Amino acid sequence: MSERLPTRPATGQAADTAAISSALALDPGAITDVQGIAVGHAAAAGRPTGCTVVLCPAGAVAGVAVRGGAPGTRETDLLRPENTVQQVHAVLLTGGSAFGLDAAGGVMRWLEEQGYGLPVGPARVPIVPAAVLFDLWVGDARIRPDAVTGYAACIAAGPAPPAQGSHGAGLGATVGKLFGVARACRGGIGTASVRVGAITMGALVAVNAIGDVLDERGEVLAGARREDGERSQRAGSGSGPGFVGAQAALLRGELPMQALRAMGHGGDVAASGALAGTATTIGIVATDAVLDKAGATQIAALAHHGLSRAVQPVTANDGDTLFALATGGAGIAGDRTTLGAMAAEAVARAIRNAVRAAVALREPPLPAAQDMARR
Amino acid sequence: MSERLPTRPATGQAADTAAISSALALDPGAITDVQGIAVGHAAAAGRPTGCTVVLCPAGAVAGVAVRGGAPGTRETDLLRPENTVQQVHAVLLTGGSAFGLDAAGGVMRWLEEQGYGLPVGPARVPIVPAAVLFDLWVGDARIRPDAVTGYAACIAAGPAPPAQGSHGAGLGATVGKLFGVARACRGGIGTASVRVGAITMGALVAVNAIGDVLDERGEVLAGARREDGERSQRAGSGSGPGFVGAQAALLRGELPMQALRAMGHGGDVAASGALAGTATTIGIVATDAVLDKAGATQIAALAHHGLSRAVQPVTANDGDTLFALATGGAGIAGDRTTLGAMAAEAVARAIRNAVRAAVALREPPLPAAQDMARR
Repeated sequence: MSERLPTRPATGQAADTAAISSALALDPGAITDVQGIAVGHAAAAGRPTGCTVVLCPAGAVAGVAVRGGAPGTRETDLLRPENTVQQVHAVLLTGGSAFGLDAAGGVMRWLEEQGYGLPVGPARVPIVPAAVLFDLWVGDARIRPDAVTGYAACIAAGPAPPAQGSHGAGLGATVGKLFGVARACRGGIGTASVRVGAITMGALVAVNAIGDVLDERGEVLAGARREDGERSQRAGSGSGPGFVGAQAALLRGELPMQALRAMGHGGDVAASGALAGTATTIGIVATDAVLDKAGATQIAALAHHGLSRAVQPVTANDGDTLFALATGGAGIAGDRTTLGAMAAEAVARAIRNAVRAAVALREPPLPAAQDMARR
Repeated sequence: MSERLPTRPATGQAADTAAISSALALDPGAITDVQGIAVGHAAAAGRPTGCTVVLCPAGAVAGVAVRGGAPGTRETDLLRPENTVQQVHAVLLTGGSAFGLDAAGGVMRWLEEQGYGLPVGPARVPIVPAAVLFDLWVGDARIRPDAVTGYAACIAAGPAPPAQGSHGAGLGATVGKLFGVARACRGGIGTASVRVGAITMGALVAVNAIGDVLDERGEVLAGARREDGERSQRAGSGSGPGFVGAQAALLRGELPMQALRAMGHGGDVAASGALAGTATTIGIVATDAVLDKAGATQIAALAHHGLSRAVQPVTANDGDTLFALATGGAGIAGDRTTLGAMAAEAVARAIRNAVRAAVALREPPLPAAQDMARR
């Protein structure tokens, strides 16, 4: 993999421009490269928040790995391999914290109207697992994605590669919150895909981590910004221009209690609880390989290794959750080790794409990776 | 973090020597920096295999995160936060695959003789969780660590920093097995520690992954070697000198079925099952922070992020298992986010130290990271 960000400032302007273009180039592909997968974004009115639906109306085998300490989820228990339901019809990623789970109801309504769902007696029950991220820092916290937003995302869904960056579930997302939202960068939603032989693996991830997002060489792409707003002069410091480097800061003893205060909490906040639910990276990997529920669960688990590589630190207050969908369209089972490597790679690339494609928010002011690279 | 391996061959001999020294320099600290933690290695006679015990005879709160798809463990269920036993007296890492679990019996015997254990009626029951790695590729597979080896490790244990590399549970360890053991490098056992404020976090990891071990910049330190044995000329290829780059190879479609055949299996091996149990990275993080079982479980989970960063790919056939021990000696709870970052960092450093300190094995011939850096 090529280096994306220079480890030291380039001196000439031409070199700067080239370096910035290279730093912001997106990895190719999308989750929609998996046939039968459609994606739609929708925004709530009144503040930057929204949801993103992945539709597989004909049904896809699914698994999930809930790894974070503060998850917000719906319909994940039925995904356990020993449980009865074998396929899902959509997966929803949404802002709005736990309130946003209502948006899954809108997705169910749309699916039911179209005649999709699990036949149960006289009914068809659409199965729509969902995960939320906490974006109530940004704008009026009373505005959250709801059933109308979820329904709108289904109407907007299609087989084309989805827009990346500040869209759908990524609208209110932030990263680099270890020293407070005031020093964060805008997160976003990203997608990517990799193909090996006859099998495609795509990922779609909404990136709202407490930690920083790192590029392929461990440099910060988007994360906690330095207090002085200045570009870092420490070439090769591993922190990237203008960034603190949250992991390194933690290891120097710059405790997140400071972050809690900066986020508006009082001084007597319990250190291990206050950030709960304030973050989360949530996503979906999808493949056309033939997998059963246990296989999909394993791929969801392996996909988290990509998250560990692209986000640092991952904290106990991130409710990180990744789903895996298998359409079976390729007609072959593939090799589990290769599928796992593909899932991890697609997730890491989708996370980086999410912040590379994001744009600055005016109010509250949140720069994006693009702005930081141009400083 | 500084760059450890040059991305291109240095031209002068002096530069080469300096680069190699830098590439092989170990990160500082050891798990024994946590007061009350003692470590001992022991080797089985007749082939390179052994075990490593971490003793905390006065008891330490413990948790575990079993993340791999093919784990071999003992006494992990009692670690679940809802279960009764609150403290353990030792944790054992051992070679010998599931056979090696017998070595825990030797540790129990030593502890019982010394009067340590959980009082249960008239008895004291030493609590000794254990995890195994599969090293039966190396030498006579009928020779495995047993109760005698476990007992010997306890006798050898002390508060000094343990030897790293080709010792104890790391004796038979290999890494970079995606294209077969014949093209692997020697794994090993490593330790490191980090300190923030009044709290220390140490890690001890036996590294036996299928995947490659990466340095801080994503270059391979020890892993699957190129078939031609030549140093890679592709400067900055991300694969390091002489290495294939297993993750990149997988993504190019070089399927592990080749690896299965190279390891001596026939052509009709089931792709998703055959490597089960053939690998595994197992380890322990220990801290003097005050944690309950739920807290220790969470730190064990967060420690896995360091594994994801230092090993690539992580496969469904790695039975990766990390324990967390909390002695409480520092008298304070610390901050969970900082502890998680410390645990991940200590694990990544310990993994790199393990392969940096390893030495070549003569029979079967397995070069170490040192040999690869000097090519």
